[in-house]
Amino acid sequence: MTSGAAILRGGLADRSTWRPGENCPVAKALGVVGTRSAMLIIREALYGTTRFDDFVARVELTEAVAAARLRELTDAGLLERHPYREDGQRTRYEYRLTEMGRDLAPAILGLYQWGARYLSANGRAPLALSHADCGSPVTVNVTCRDGHDVPLHELALARSRKPRVT
Amino acid sequence: MTSGAAILRGGLADRSTWRPGENCPVAKALGVVGTRSAMLIIREALYGTTRFDDFVARVELTEAVAAARLRELTDAGLLERHPYREDGQRTRYEYRLTEMGRDLAPAILGLYQWGARYLSANGRAPLALSHADCGSPVTVNVTCRDGHDVPLHELALARSRKPRVT
Repeated sequence: MTSGAAILRGGLADRSTWRPGENCPVAKALGVVGTRSAMLIIREALYGTTRFDDFVARVELTEAVAAARLRELTDAGLLERHPYREDGQRTRYEYRLTEMGRDLAPAILGLYQWGARYLSANGRAPLALSHADCGSPVTVNVTCRDGHDVPLHELALARSRKPRVT
Repeated sequence: MTSGAAILRGGLADRSTWRPGENCPVAKALGVVGTRSAMLIIREALYGTTRFDDFVARVELTEAVAAARLRELTDAGLLERHPYREDGQRTRYEYRLTEMGRDLAPAILGLYQWGARYLSANGRAPLALSHADCGSPVTVNVTCRDGHDVPLHELALARSRKPRVT
């Protein structure tokens, strides 16, 4: 027995009878944002970066890698391209997060929180995250719909039921 | 103006004056768990997998890759090796999550939630996550200490203040 893991229920309890495989949503997510450069481009987009040159400079990528990654993330639906034009310049494109892209915030901020806690000098994050409306510090949390914090040893996993055909 | 990104405050507001660089906790986190195999090994450990052969089978890795990754994650402090011995066998080791490893749960479950919502057939996760104590569905959320949900456009980022020397 270990108190350090989730609780597997029903058909999942015997791990020898199933494998997450390619169906696992974590594996699927990593198929889209599983590279360091993709994750850091989304981080930048969460910070409001939209322009190609800014992604290149702030993520410290080559132009070729930035272009490839922005195209992949756009094709996958996380970013949308919008044309813009500055005086005397040709039309360029900026990249804005879609709802799908914004919904990665909990995962990216989860990595931020973990990196700040365990890997930063003095355990102190370089940036402070707060709620603009009330000023309170912000964290990423695993919670249930009844409002309880759910530590790992209280997290139960079971096979999803097929939706009922009505 | 974009309503699709966080709010940068103070010295951060002009993005041309700063870069996240290597100091960014997300970049640091990806330095440790930035490979697909590392992320999926931690996923498995969250599900309770502890033994080498099970990591190999369930993450679908070669033995060489599994051994390298388990060693790196142990050296980095996410896993601890514990000896065990079955009848007639030599001593082997199992790998258990440390607190540092368990604290990756919000990030990994954040990827799970995102992958389930956007990349799964019918938007349905293969596993249902619930709170063992009360049965309610579990989600990963960005919230402030006052209990508000914090959507991205209400998330304020500022430079952390240096701790006061007293």
